[in-house]
Amino acid sequence: MPENHATPLEALLLPETPTDVHYRRNHFEYPEVGLAGWALEVTGAVERPLWLTLDEIQRLPSRELRALLECAGHRRTEYLPPVAGVQWKTGALGQARWRGASLADVLRQAGVRAGAVEVVLRGADRGPFSGEGEYAFERSLPLDKALDPDTLLAWEMNGEPLPKPHGAPLRAVVPGWYAMDSIKWLLRVEVVTEPFRGPFQELDYRFKAADDPGIGRRLARIPVSSLIVEPGEGASLRPGRIMLRGIAWGGEGGIEGVHVRLDEGEYRAARLSPPEGPYGKSAWEAECELPPGEHVVSVRARDRSGQLQPEQAEWNQRGYANNGVHRVRVRVE
Amino acid sequence: MPENHATPLEALLLPETPTDVHYRRNHFEYPEVGLAGWALEVTGAVERPLWLTLDEIQRLPSRELRALLECAGHRRTEYLPPVAGVQWKTGALGQARWRGASLADVLRQAGVRAGAVEVVLRGADRGPFSGEGEYAFERSLPLDKALDPDTLLAWEMNGEPLPKPHGAPLRAVVPGWYAMDSIKWLLRVEVVTEPFRGPFQELDYRFKAADDPGIGRRLARIPVSSLIVEPGEGASLRPGRIMLRGIAWGGEGGIEGVHVRLDEGEYRAARLSPPEGPYGKSAWEAECELPPGEHVVSVRARDRSGQLQPEQAEWNQRGYANNGVHRVRVRVE
Repeated sequence: MPENHATPLEALLLPETPTDVHYRRNHFEYPEVGLAGWALEVTGAVERPLWLTLDEIQRLPSRELRALLECAGHRRTEYLPPVAGVQWKTGALGQARWRGASLADVLRQAGVRAGAVEVVLRGADRGPFSGEGEYAFERSLPLDKALDPDTLLAWEMNGEPLPKPHGAPLRAVVPGWYAMDSIKWLLRVEVVTEPFRGPFQELDYRFKAADDPGIGRRLARIPVSSLIVEPGEGASLRPGRIMLRGIAWGGEGGIEGVHVRLDEGEYRAARLSPPEGPYGKSAWEAECELPPGEHVVSVRARDRSGQLQPEQAEWNQRGYANNGVHRVRVRVE
Repeated sequence: MPENHATPLEALLLPETPTDVHYRRNHFEYPEVGLAGWALEVTGAVERPLWLTLDEIQRLPSRELRALLECAGHRRTEYLPPVAGVQWKTGALGQARWRGASLADVLRQAGVRAGAVEVVLRGADRGPFSGEGEYAFERSLPLDKALDPDTLLAWEMNGEPLPKPHGAPLRAVVPGWYAMDSIKWLLRVEVVTEPFRGPFQELDYRFKAADDPGIGRRLARIPVSSLIVEPGEGASLRPGRIMLRGIAWGGEGGIEGVHVRLDEGEYRAARLSPPEGPYGKSAWEAECELPPGEHVVSVRARDRSGQLQPEQAEWNQRGYANNGVHRVRVRVE
């Protein structure tokens, strides 16, 4: 069975989610992929098809950046009526420090040919899809995202060699975008001149509104979002002042502000820490006076483009992209 | 350096060339390909893409057949003016017993889609081509040849597990055709709807006549051919009766007859043994009275379709397909 494993929320308050507890989401069994004979194939609409060994990739200029990766199905369980798929509550996200080469440098070395529109990344993981045939886990990036210097081919996570569960020997890290594009156990980079139509591109990971009879739209950038980490869901607390703590991420241009409220009260501004890099989360905290009783604490972030988290995310057929206001219930006595 | 290694001619008189001395022709270094994680990808214009483990392939009905494999560049050195390429004299051929599944069964399992025209076989061996880019060794078969039940995915050679130098864990055996189509170290079977245009298909292995400014024609079926094995080139012999021995192969419908001659004398029929299977060679022998002096012995075969070996094969730009009459010089004293 593929391993799906959430990050404990407290770990999200750290600037780097420790590798051991960083969330994992796999479609299939861990693939058998070792360094013996491994090379990254760079093929398709390129002037010079290449196979690059890890050594060759590591000799390219390297970049290191923090990126928050979030599963598109994070908080799926909050959608009602329920939606099929991995039943994620909170925690299908993590933030690590990644070192790698720019995919753009590899593409330049191979020479992208005129007419290229997308770059398909293929992992070594594979298996049945809907019972008909077996498919590698592969998805495409639009050419401009593939050529963004921050789109990495990464071999290091949090300063250590990339571990197998996170995609060794080499994985993509596509910062700012939902994590299904950050293909693990990379085998191939293929430049294509027609939009890629594999099942993980055209059937999965699309936002299909309730009444959409079509294939919906591709998920890409993570929308503005936030979580309450402390207190945890269902906590029992003493009456009085407590500190609420959490994180906010996603959106465009960074987080502009985070607001919290108690029950049906007013939203009040939380204190926001500086963002942990251009693709990193921001920590926030806010004091709150809790009277006895059952309460709901809510958090809502806004990004610098003016996007605000909705009170409730739009229900969609596959239960993706839930960036609705996050709420925790607490009992005070 | 890739290994190129001829079969000693005496070994060709056996019905099975011993594995250790069976000729080898590699374009590149031996690839690193092991069974860990290995699976044959069956992809392209198919209903159900598949990855088949060796176990799964070995559970298909298996076939065993003898096939003579010959390098298209065999006897290139006899062409004048000389032609670039591996400077093969005689011996770039061998005949083994191969066991495998029919490629057709694998294609049926995946379901070939309408519009398919060719099946591209890819090996794990790869390297630079003409200094620009790196290419896997891959070639296509027309759909009808791919669906011929005798086109095998073989895992056994001469009753033993296929050794790595001959393509383990799995190789193609395309009997009757020049051996560059019998792709070793198979990784992928791809059904395509347009003719494949890789460099080993469109640039190499094409018969281009001296005055052909184009890309020439694809080499496929081995034409009728023969060799003198005994006596060997340059042998010193006593005057009197000797036995000439050799082999004949290729062409259509089997070998109809083999003729030998001494110097400028008449061609005389040799005794022909039954063919060693539908894709096997036939042994021949003929007595010959040798007077003292320098002599040339020649052999010429004819197939059942009426094709006769030419006295001299047509010179061509890459020096392929030399099935000219074979001659050995001997000194009798």
